[in-house]
Amino acid sequence: MADNWIGIDLGGTNIKAGVVADGGAVLARREVDTQADRGFEHVLARLVQLVSDLLADAGLMRTAVRAIGIGVPGPLSHHRGIVFSAPNMPGWENAPVRDRLSGATGLPVSLENDANAACFGELVAGAGRQMQDIVMLTLGTGVGSGIVLGGRLWRGSYDAAGEIGHTIVVPGGRPCPCGQRGCLERYASASAVGQRAAEAIAAGEESTLAPLGGARGTAEAVTAEAVERAAAQGDALARRIWDETCYYLALACVNIKQTFDPQQVVLAGGLINAGDALMTPVRRHYDGLHWRITPNRMRIDFATLGGNAGLIGAAALARSEFG
Amino acid sequence: MADNWIGIDLGGTNIKAGVVADGGAVLARREVDTQADRGFEHVLARLVQLVSDLLADAGLMRTAVRAIGIGVPGPLSHHRGIVFSAPNMPGWENAPVRDRLSGATGLPVSLENDANAACFGELVAGAGRQMQDIVMLTLGTGVGSGIVLGGRLWRGSYDAAGEIGHTIVVPGGRPCPCGQRGCLERYASASAVGQRAAEAIAAGEESTLAPLGGARGTAEAVTAEAVERAAAQGDALARRIWDETCYYLALACVNIKQTFDPQQVVLAGGLINAGDALMTPVRRHYDGLHWRITPNRMRIDFATLGGNAGLIGAAALARSEFG
Repeated sequence: MADNWIGIDLGGTNIKAGVVADGGAVLARREVDTQADRGFEHVLARLVQLVSDLLADAGLMRTAVRAIGIGVPGPLSHHRGIVFSAPNMPGWENAPVRDRLSGATGLPVSLENDANAACFGELVAGAGRQMQDIVMLTLGTGVGSGIVLGGRLWRGSYDAAGEIGHTIVVPGGRPCPCGQRGCLERYASASAVGQRAAEAIAAGEESTLAPLGGARGTAEAVTAEAVERAAAQGDALARRIWDETCYYLALACVNIKQTFDPQQVVLAGGLINAGDALMTPVRRHYDGLHWRITPNRMRIDFATLGGNAGLIGAAALARSEFG
Repeated sequence: MADNWIGIDLGGTNIKAGVVADGGAVLARREVDTQADRGFEHVLARLVQLVSDLLADAGLMRTAVRAIGIGVPGPLSHHRGIVFSAPNMPGWENAPVRDRLSGATGLPVSLENDANAACFGELVAGAGRQMQDIVMLTLGTGVGSGIVLGGRLWRGSYDAAGEIGHTIVVPGGRPCPCGQRGCLERYASASAVGQRAAEAIAAGEESTLAPLGGARGTAEAVTAEAVERAAAQGDALARRIWDETCYYLALACVNIKQTFDPQQVVLAGGLINAGDALMTPVRRHYDGLHWRITPNRMRIDFATLGGNAGLIGAAALARSEFG
């Protein structure tokens, strides 16, 4: 009989989870609110219920599942099974997620950073299916990243690798909530696109986006989608900010190439909804920034699993640990 | 009977080579001129002679040696055993070093990038002896780098990993001979220190270094050592350039930490002769640039093997491949 694995992608807003068979088929899938504001014990109870519901959906006994993999926004320790803290999830300070979830479900649990889980998902079932060495950048509220080398996730000596969003791309540049300045995340995340546009408008620059930024008077009113749309319609400010975003993404790809020499960079997250409007300038800037003294075979591709990457990857990581 | 390995560190000026026993003891060591201007066949013949001489020095039969490891300035392919080209070594275009040296000596040969070999040497016998995950930056004419993860050299998908010297640290910054702009190497190599000082003097800045730069009228007249000495004596220009160098080295260390989360960064090469005058400001800038939201356990240390790192590492890589 084939083994099955449960993958969970826990976010501050939703929990996505599924039962994944050995061959990769998703046998059942559910998505529920996290209700993070009600604290750790409440969310834990929801996770336990979700596991039961998924088993019922798939018509499986608990014994037909070998283990649970769960991706959580870090920082966390895979090796110790503890989440140190989770953004937007009160009560998750030093939360012993692995042991508590394992105790409540009777199944072994593998705890992983959500960006790592999504990257592993793209490796086993998405954009990186034919690859062994990939680096993924998830362009959302922040810039998450995952690193797979030789088919294995690189977690770092202290479970803190893959913070490429917090590599410094502009010395002394924009302040980042992390405490550093000039982090990639401040230039290439979806939220940084809107934020830079709103700031420029607030500083008096003309733009078709101005009524948007002006109406609410807050940075949140200008989204990356609005900037991309305005850029496509020829708005000068929007074009500059969109192009800058693509430039810094390309610069990050150059640095990834020179450091790891991987087969592929996978771009994921909300920003990739822009499609060619993102990929074409990223590739053009990449070609302009990268040396030509050796052939450059690294691919740059979009993720293909969308919102399922995290749960598929978490299930696959559980399998690689307990299989 | 214990096995022995021959390690060779081939540079444009010298060849350093040794017989290394399984336990790490260097049984014999020689250093000869490369005579690179006489071309590939001549240098190959010198390598073959060197192997014979080392065996005689150590009083060993050829059968007591298991394999040869050789580090060469790249770009090259470890997997194919070919050097694509070597700086300052005419006639090394697509040179089949591995097979030719193996054919002439009757021993298996492992070909490696020189910076990778030196990094592996520091791992097995130097600054990284207690470590599994280290990144080394060699600060000389350029900035070489090597990456060891889980005790194994990370070579990249296409044998081109570890070019951290050509990650971009200043967008649109100083032009690099590689064709890119703003490479780490343009700010943190020994030669870049002298070059920046000479340029500032040529541009009319006052400095106690001016007679040096002025007398010969060339950038080569100002060395990194001279800049470091002048900085120690309070020269404002020298202090600014030295501090900038330490800043960009620290920035590179932040990016390495955020990317790999290794146990250690090892600094090597000519620039580390400055000792505390380098390490103290590098660590200070690193602490200032790096976030404080998680504990930072990555060590920054100097290499300890000096000119022997390459040959010891090459021998150890041969052992890891053929042992």
